[in-house]
Amino acid sequence: MTNLTLALDAMGGDYGPQVTVPAAVQALRLHSKLSLILVGDEQQLSPLLAQADFLPSDRFSIVHTTEVVRMDDKPATALRKAKNSSMRLAIELVRDGKADACVSAGNTGALMAMAKVILKTLPGVDRPALVSCLPAVSGKPVYLLDLGANVQCDYDTLFQFAVMGTVLCEAVEKIPRPKVALLNVGIEEFKGNGDVQQAAQLLQHTPQINYAGFVEGDEIYTGKVDVIVCDGFVGNITLKTSEGIARLLVHQLKQGLTQGFMVRLLARMLAPRIQKVLSQMNPDHYNGASLLGLRGIVVKSHGNADEHAYIQAISLAYTEAKRRLPEMISDRLESILLDINS
Amino acid sequence: MTNLTLALDAMGGDYGPQVTVPAAVQALRLHSKLSLILVGDEQQLSPLLAQADFLPSDRFSIVHTTEVVRMDDKPATALRKAKNSSMRLAIELVRDGKADACVSAGNTGALMAMAKVILKTLPGVDRPALVSCLPAVSGKPVYLLDLGANVQCDYDTLFQFAVMGTVLCEAVEKIPRPKVALLNVGIEEFKGNGDVQQAAQLLQHTPQINYAGFVEGDEIYTGKVDVIVCDGFVGNITLKTSEGIARLLVHQLKQGLTQGFMVRLLARMLAPRIQKVLSQMNPDHYNGASLLGLRGIVVKSHGNADEHAYIQAISLAYTEAKRRLPEMISDRLESILLDINS
Repeated sequence: MTNLTLALDAMGGDYGPQVTVPAAVQALRLHSKLSLILVGDEQQLSPLLAQADFLPSDRFSIVHTTEVVRMDDKPATALRKAKNSSMRLAIELVRDGKADACVSAGNTGALMAMAKVILKTLPGVDRPALVSCLPAVSGKPVYLLDLGANVQCDYDTLFQFAVMGTVLCEAVEKIPRPKVALLNVGIEEFKGNGDVQQAAQLLQHTPQINYAGFVEGDEIYTGKVDVIVCDGFVGNITLKTSEGIARLLVHQLKQGLTQGFMVRLLARMLAPRIQKVLSQMNPDHYNGASLLGLRGIVVKSHGNADEHAYIQAISLAYTEAKRRLPEMISDRLESILLDINS
Repeated sequence: MTNLTLALDAMGGDYGPQVTVPAAVQALRLHSKLSLILVGDEQQLSPLLAQADFLPSDRFSIVHTTEVVRMDDKPATALRKAKNSSMRLAIELVRDGKADACVSAGNTGALMAMAKVILKTLPGVDRPALVSCLPAVSGKPVYLLDLGANVQCDYDTLFQFAVMGTVLCEAVEKIPRPKVALLNVGIEEFKGNGDVQQAAQLLQHTPQINYAGFVEGDEIYTGKVDVIVCDGFVGNITLKTSEGIARLLVHQLKQGLTQGFMVRLLARMLAPRIQKVLSQMNPDHYNGASLLGLRGIVVKSHGNADEHAYIQAISLAYTEAKRRLPEMISDRLESILLDINS
């Protein structure tokens, strides 16, 4: 296998280099064929790198810049003004072929806007989609897209998302012919709005996609299907609602298990086990959302990712680069469009 | 206080009279000013009523019919064909002033369609909304609407939902000036689609509504606001996603707490406490979704509600009838529209 190079927006995220630098060092240790380009303020990065107990000098370099996209910058502002931001330079390294993928924990809106403008979408793709995987009862992850890159999507865009999600799931999970469903308010054909109904029509007539029909919200986490498609408004709210209800349950559980001496004692003895379950539910466990449909690989880490979570995001970008995901998506879309038009 | 009469679709729901009859008997015991009309097949109802240990004959009656709306009937079919269905007759009792409200655990789509056609919407209301309350970290319930009565809503409809939700929350929870928010993909003004943005504009300029801005999905369950408004597509998926993730968490917890002898033993000792928490999270605990904006009160119970959950739905309908909810909504809308036009 050849070496792969990833560009990291080392300044992005709530903790910036405090998290990205130690995570980068660990990722280099984890993947012997990986090289990293850290984009950020050398003055901040160097002291942290100096603390590393492992640092193969031939596999990492720094691209220095002091400019940073702030978490509250509007996408348009970031695009216009932050010409030398760590985020922008990391994406440009991908565009210029100097990196095979990039990772950022910075401002999501700015990252999506920049990635779209700098890398451009693949032929046949109208809009890129943000996708991530979720835990499920089945034990297998479920891919949900779009998570908020596009608040409004027509049926054609939903169709493209289904194709891109399929290819991602095949590439990362190595599941052949993953089951794809459209998220809807009911499973009957007549349910939902015009766009999901027309997307369903298209998918039903695309043998290259293993279309499984509509699923409702309560079926996302069963693992009944591998890929679930919806517009970015619904996807974003679905994902965040899940985080909210998980937090509520943890809160209730804590309350319920701290009232009364005996209960408290027993609960404390069980705490490690309960902690383990909760950490499986932690979104960090599945960190790394991919921006699909671009002529290059961009992975978005949670803004508040810790070192472990950020390593997950680097590993995801590494896997996508290894499988040459954009080429896979492009090939599949072309082949499907040829099928449809023949 | 005067007596109030509710009509029950005694045949509706997954368990039909097996649940509705014992729940009706308990509700009569609970509310001494309540009378009930059970609509359904007398042959099925009578033996169950005969088993009741408490049955004030002056406070209940049966309207006999053998016709039933099936759970898989399309709304249009139910409307056209089921002229003597228990569901339809129960709604007609409200229209004809023979009942102050009705309750059904039957087919949601059919119930909404029938209620709209038979009862009609209030002046100023374009579409009725389905609303229910959810648990929150704050301990107070949160009202979410629309839960699926309308898969597409324009800004004007979202605005009306905000008004109706406000009135319901005031009436049932007795919260003065409840905080109302729009569900969105971000809290910044520029986030979301055109309809939520325009609805926000309208709400900002309506002093009669305590508008609190946008909330994201992860804030639904904090209890930060009292009423959350969204279209029925988003609301339905949000609600069902919550059920799905709660089930996943319970599954993971069970798995985590049954591996290893000591863990199993401790978990068994804690089981009652854990059960209590989970039952608080159970949607049945908050059973009863109201169909708002009609010239009459209709409460939808979960299809799989048990006796306890069905009593909750009856009690909700009773409270709404006591407060004369449709008149309250109508008055408030009129006063707000006068304000806007003056």
